Amino acid sequence: MFDLFSVIEDFRAGGNSMLSSENQNWIERLVIPIRNDLLSGAAEITLQAIVVLKNILSVDKCKNPTELGELLKFAGDKLIEAQPAMSSLINLSDEVLKVINENISLADNKKNCLDALNEFEKDLCTNVANIADTALALMPPGEIVFAYSFSSTVVSCLLNAKAKGRYFRVACSESRPSMEGRKLANHLVAGGIEVILTVDSAMGMILPSCSIAFMGCDSISGPGLVNKSGSLLLALACHEMNIPVYALCDSSKFISEDRFFEFEKHERPANEVWEEAPKGVTILNRQFELIPFEYINGLVTEHGLFTAKEIPTYFAKVAKQQLQPAVK
Amino acid sequence: MFDLFSVIEDFRAGGNSMLSSENQNWIERLVIPIRNDLLSGAAEITLQAIVVLKNILSVDKCKNPTELGELLKFAGDKLIEAQPAMSSLINLSDEVLKVINENISLADNKKNCLDALNEFEKDLCTNVANIADTALALMPPGEIVFAYSFSSTVVSCLLNAKAKGRYFRVACSESRPSMEGRKLANHLVAGGIEVILTVDSAMGMILPSCSIAFMGCDSISGPGLVNKSGSLLLALACHEMNIPVYALCDSSKFISEDRFFEFEKHERPANEVWEEAPKGVTILNRQFELIPFEYINGLVTEHGLFTAKEIPTYFAKVAKQQLQPAVK
Repeated sequence: MFDLFSVIEDFRAGGNSMLSSENQNWIERLVIPIRNDLLSGAAEITLQAIVVLKNILSVDKCKNPTELGELLKFAGDKLIEAQPAMSSLINLSDEVLKVINENISLADNKKNCLDALNEFEKDLCTNVANIADTALALMPPGEIVFAYSFSSTVVSCLLNAKAKGRYFRVACSESRPSMEGRKLANHLVAGGIEVILTVDSAMGMILPSCSIAFMGCDSISGPGLVNKSGSLLLALACHEMNIPVYALCDSSKFISEDRFFEFEKHERPANEVWEEAPKGVTILNRQFELIPFEYINGLVTEHGLFTAKEIPTYFAKVAKQQLQPAVK
Repeated sequence: MFDLFSVIEDFRAGGNSMLSSENQNWIERLVIPIRNDLLSGAAEITLQAIVVLKNILSVDKCKNPTELGELLKFAGDKLIEAQPAMSSLINLSDEVLKVINENISLADNKKNCLDALNEFEKDLCTNVANIADTALALMPPGEIVFAYSFSSTVVSCLLNAKAKGRYFRVACSESRPSMEGRKLANHLVAGGIEVILTVDSAMGMILPSCSIAFMGCDSISGPGLVNKSGSLLLALACHEMNIPVYALCDSSKFISEDRFFEFEKHERPANEVWEEAPKGVTILNRQFELIPFEYINGLVTEHGLFTAKEIPTYFAKVAKQQLQPAVK
């Protein structure tokens, strides 16, 4: 049996990968578009990561199940490193590595991995559809919905509501420095939804006109949820203004606490914020931040809506099912 | 006696100015730099307005006290229209128009106006010095102070604290779209103060590292204070995080409620936020917003510190002294 956990331990201890540098370079090149993608939400990035892993399965770069496991392990680590806030990548990588079995043929291993990837992808899509139905029930007709940053789950929910005949408008802010708020606006107007866009600092000005706020979620664990920076201000402002704010999040984003704080590694280059800042000015450019559950009204998951108080119990249940190493 | 109030009523009723179009154009040209200045705080803009009014007094464009009053009234209105959130301009204009007297010579009228302008300028500077002393006493040594947008009063207080040997660092955000946070950072590092700058949406991330927050103030009246957009988010976040937040504001910013909402006129061009936004996207680009007193810990004025609860009483006292028409 492929010993995933010893490989993970090796990696954490700084052990070198046994892959050829040619294979390492190849995988690193495959991961570049995901590393450079500052505009996509976690679900979209996860779908792109599934494509990368399927690509690895489809080519002839390994001789046996152990080497396949090495390749997929290296790819998973690179994906996680590329987007450390998106814990669905950790879960995706774990899911595919779990099925590696040295006692069956390489071809059968590849087939099992592909099945695991397809299953993950199918679940992701089914989950988003379930979330969209719950979110629709929360949206008051004719009102303005605030949506922050770019989350493909949130976009799917809004487009679903529009397709089901619900009339509403969306307010959003630009999301400096990457401006993924513009991507959100582009997607929504293309789907026939009117958008009001403002600067991030004006969130407090537009929120009193909104009836509800939605945010996506990159990662979730005991201490709270992780999302794009600005989400905490949104949640605090909604909390003070009595505007219900929900995080839309499927269970692929759940992660154990020991791996939850990976997102803090995501310090982006200073020049994205200010090129040639004067000496004496330190730039802080972190993409993600932690939002404690107490500041949101609830979490909309594929299993329904959970209030802030219910989240810890729900999380414990999901964690028990999902985060246990499934030894084969 | 020059009847200021009938002229104001004429103006409000849409009455045409009796000035020649040459004089109107000349004054409008003088006001352009103030209209285009999106980076300066209210105290700085007021000092610039004093220069404009002194310029008008220094040239030979009118034949009698009535015409001088017309010129100064037109200039005052243009200044207020250029920066409608900055109520010190309303007070400045009122102060100078109050001294116009048709029963004395043009030369004596000009001298009285100049004295009124010099008095206003002197008060402004003395007030900032008093505010700086009170602010210094609030700053815990060795800590990080959050400062929002660009306020020359806040900058003066921070530079005063540094000059008095207090060690501290300043955190700020960029203040999209005009980026006056960069102007703040430039002024502070030039004065030897270390600065940490981040995007506006990351205020919630940096605030827990700060011990106190300062904002300037463009206008103040019964309902609250007006400052650059983003100030409300700052105040809400500080309120939730138990970080004391103070507005630094001299009494030239106090205004009666009937003229308080001028700031809402200040809608800036959409293309400052997003050039070529797609059809279906409406851009909201307002520079200023209202912050209810309940979200700040206090107001630092030239008369000392007033807590949120004490502000209404203090305001009533100042309003009584200051906002009454002083008929001469």
